[in-house]
Amino acid sequence: MTDVPTVADATAWWSTAITRIEPGVIELRGYPIEQLIGRLDFVSIVWLLTKGELPTDTESRLLQAALVASVDHGPQAPSIASARMAATCGVGINSAMANGINVLGDTHGGAGQQCVALLNRIVATVAEQGGRVDDVAAQVVADYRARSAFVPGFGHRFHPRDPRRDVLLRLVEDAVAAGTVPGDYLRAGVAVERALANGTRKPPMNIDGVTAIVYAELGVEPELARGFFVLARSVGILAHAWEETSGGRRVKGPLPPPLLADYTGEATRDYAKP
Amino acid sequence: MTDVPTVADATAWWSTAITRIEPGVIELRGYPIEQLIGRLDFVSIVWLLTKGELPTDTESRLLQAALVASVDHGPQAPSIASARMAATCGVGINSAMANGINVLGDTHGGAGQQCVALLNRIVATVAEQGGRVDDVAAQVVADYRARSAFVPGFGHRFHPRDPRRDVLLRLVEDAVAAGTVPGDYLRAGVAVERALANGTRKPPMNIDGVTAIVYAELGVEPELARGFFVLARSVGILAHAWEETSGGRRVKGPLPPPLLADYTGEATRDYAKP
Amino acid sequence: MTDVPTVADATAWWSTAITRIEPGVIELRGYPIEQLIGRLDFVSIVWLLTKGELPTDTESRLLQAALVASVDHGPQAPSIASARMAATCGVGINSAMANGINVLGDTHGGAGQQCVALLNRIVATVAEQGGRVDDVAAQVVADYRARSAFVPGFGHRFHPRDPRRDVLLRLVEDAVAAGTVPGDYLRAGVAVERALANGTRKPPMNIDGVTAIVYAELGVEPELARGFFVLARSVGILAHAWEETSGGRRVKGPLPPPLLADYTGEATRDYAKP
Amino acid sequence: MTDVPTVADATAWWSTAITRIEPGVIELRGYPIEQLIGRLDFVSIVWLLTKGELPTDTESRLLQAALVASVDHGPQAPSIASARMAATCGVGINSAMANGINVLGDTHGGAGQQCVALLNRIVATVAEQGGRVDDVAAQVVADYRARSAFVPGFGHRFHPRDPRRDVLLRLVEDAVAAGTVPGDYLRAGVAVERALANGTRKPPMNIDGVTAIVYAELGVEPELARGFFVLARSVGILAHAWEETSGGRRVKGPLPPPLLADYTGEATRDYAKP
Repeated sequence: MTDVPTVADATAWWSTAITRIEPGVIELRGYPIEQLIGRLDFVSIVWLLTKGELPTDTESRLLQAALVASVDHGPQAPSIASARMAATCGVGINSAMANGINVLGDTHGGAGQQCVALLNRIVATVAEQGGRVDDVAAQVVADYRARSAFVPGFGHRFHPRDPRRDVLLRLVEDAVAAGTVPGDYLRAGVAVERALANGTRKPPMNIDGVTAIVYAELGVEPELARGFFVLARSVGILAHAWEETSGGRRVKGPLPPPLLADYTGEATRDYAKP
Repeated sequence: MTDVPTVADATAWWSTAITRIEPGVIELRGYPIEQLIGRLDFVSIVWLLTKGELPTDTESRLLQAALVASVDHGPQAPSIASARMAATCGVGINSAMANGINVLGDTHGGAGQQCVALLNRIVATVAEQGGRVDDVAAQVVADYRARSAFVPGFGHRFHPRDPRRDVLLRLVEDAVAAGTVPGDYLRAGVAVERALANGTRKPPMNIDGVTAIVYAELGVEPELARGFFVLARSVGILAHAWEETSGGRRVKGPLPPPLLADYTGEATRDYAKP
Repeated sequence: MTDVPTVADATAWWSTAITRIEPGVIELRGYPIEQLIGRLDFVSIVWLLTKGELPTDTESRLLQAALVASVDHGPQAPSIASARMAATCGVGINSAMANGINVLGDTHGGAGQQCVALLNRIVATVAEQGGRVDDVAAQVVADYRARSAFVPGFGHRFHPRDPRRDVLLRLVEDAVAAGTVPGDYLRAGVAVERALANGTRKPPMNIDGVTAIVYAELGVEPELARGFFVLARSVGILAHAWEETSGGRRVKGPLPPPLLADYTGEATRDYAKP
Repeated sequence: MTDVPTVADATAWWSTAITRIEPGVIELRGYPIEQLIGRLDFVSIVWLLTKGELPTDTESRLLQAALVASVDHGPQAPSIASARMAATCGVGINSAMANGINVLGDTHGGAGQQCVALLNRIVATVAEQGGRVDDVAAQVVADYRARSAFVPGFGHRFHPRDPRRDVLLRLVEDAVAAGTVPGDYLRAGVAVERALANGTRKPPMNIDGVTAIVYAELGVEPELARGFFVLARSVGILAHAWEETSGGRRVKGPLPPPLLADYTGEATRDYAKP
């Protein structure tokens, strides 16, 4: 930025390394888009746009699997319920989807991101201080317990055993065996699970934990990992918004009429203007 | 709904045919999710969740291509700019994505949906009333011109020729030749383009028009077609939000400081309390 | 815009007549903000910013009343439920409010806007074609009935008689009597209500209808009228989001656990990879 | 929640103490709404709904002033720019407003909330540990400086002196003199300002700081204080969205065409399918 701003400052303010747009030209990370359409699958483009290069076979396979595993968990989730309600209120399907996505916040959609950060921290600690990963994981678990905090990515409010865990872990194990991912984050995640299982109940790894292992093994940054989860869950959000739209209901609230929310406040009182 | 509502009315209010959730069980359209992870690609699941069945090869190939073609068009678009600005304001990447998606409204993201509806109407008119598709298309174009309205899916504010048009059309033509899609919607779209080209300037089919042909050939409903566009553009929105997050800028407005918006309103005046 | 854009084109692109911002200066429609703080009430500033001038006493009184009447209608409404659910998902109160506001769409929040447009049309028709307002209103009602459409602003899914109707109408009648509003829109609204009451059930004017009369009498454009409704309902949205935040619940869905949405889709089936 | 959920569990799940809704009945915190319309101003209802009781004169006066002070800061702000862009994209004014509000996150709209928390902490520290408020404030400032962090509510990227500061502080001083607010939070805020001014440049209190003093003196919780800011800024967001709508521009991006964002990424490269 020069002292007296120029129009070049304005175009530089919006600069990007993702997509080159000129009349007649669209390039994604340097590749002319007409060379990609029909030849590359959608998930390769997800990786290309966010990470800058086309994925390897391993990156593609693991990203596909993590995305597939995360698409939906039904209308009990506020993200899905929000999108379905919005779809009945006279907004476009884009706005219904936006409402579903917007609530994938730190508590509802952030455990995967937090778990990637946790795995990164464990692996970094082992690398810097030496020691066994099991000991570092046990210390981490102890720290969380001392704060009465959830360990992100572990424990499930609902499933006694998450059906997505084993199949995803096996894909990571295969990649470790093939030498195409390092394996440190898998070991860290399993060590945390083991440390938690020493406690009073068996807290299995949940979908956030197992996809966090995938993303950490692929070198995906924590916040981008949440972005991938949002992208995956957008599919469920779209499907549910569309199902609700197709049903034709108008202004759908959380309870079927004539059910009313309980009122627990002040009894009726008169307003006497002073 | 019975006269006196029961708890079954409340669970029925939220019923869905998409995903079955029970303790230890997640089924997508009836398929146990652990059978799909690692074996099916993400786009097959997009089709499964929204349309109810796994895609044929043709459905999968064309949907992949349409999604890839729609991922991004750079920071000039308000959807991308909105997401980038949001990413600097101290909200999660989910909220940055929601803001980008939310503006894919009737004007910014709805042309594809409108074009699917238009193609459906032309094909239905030909089927009901007979006549040549070129004549019906010419009539439709004349109607739009009489109202000084844009024909959705045609004309481009920017590209003299959209680089995505030919490669996508060729994929549809291949499918028509193979007998795996009907071809009526392709013919209708090309007829509209031809009718428009008879006018004063050459209005090539744009990305909304060519993806509308894909979606119409696949039997995708107009509003769901917009949903697919939103899903595709979410990838660009994510990539741009993430690029902005990585840059670390705080509270990014549309103009680089110290540039200020022009003020064109009332001159300074004093408020005299009556 | 010149042929070669300049930085002045960029600042002009964002020009506004609302607020002048310079170092040390903030003026609202020309008034230095330090002259307004502590001397003018909030609703006067709402009018000043949106309409450009400070309100008259009548404008202030009627806008206050319409805003007060619209603040809340409880958690049955999807706007309120959306905000409450969002507040439990780990997003800021701004995002919880955004989700509530976003669903005040054509069906859930647009009836007032549509009713202002309807009243404007009736008054314009009477002005242009002459005739009695009752006859014009009866014709309008007949048109809606022929299309099996709701007349916006009339009928209520819930209240046999809306408690807000009479008190708001009386304020408008007082202003008509004082000669500070024209009264044409009040007469049009009452005529519509009368025409509807000739039908099979008594459809009282609802909150959207009565506030539409207020806004139409004040010369508020239809879409801005929706904006005022959104602003008013934002208060209820804020109060409910804050109540939910204070309660401390996490990831609140529409049904209390362990209640699950009914599943009505495909029975379990195996995926056999082709 | 009983072991076998009942319909009463579902209505209790949505219980509220804010508004009682029954057929023909709307009560806000116990007051029948028809007693409030036309007799109470909008800001009194803001306080009633969020805090549970009608405001005292002091509460009403200070809340009005804080809201008026926060309504707008022009299109340079991403919240305003987001709403204006959205208004050109074919979504309702509700969705344009939602996009503006959604970005009032921790960085763009959270400084006031953070400053209320800071003032609460200083006052609590003085109460618990004794000592002079100036010493506690100096220690707090030293802590922020050691972390190279901004002190929320102080310093301004733009105004050398915020024109809203003095007039708002004077209103608080008057209330302290009248004995209607405690004054501890005012003293804490001024002490922080003094401590910062001992440094290398003079960092005046900004709008977030001075409204934080107002809210803290009124006993408003930090997150609710952000809610009040969001409500106030919604007025500017509405006015700007409406101005943009009235202008009729379609699909407005951040730069005026034909200006394009700079591209800084990979040079053109060919995709060779493996």
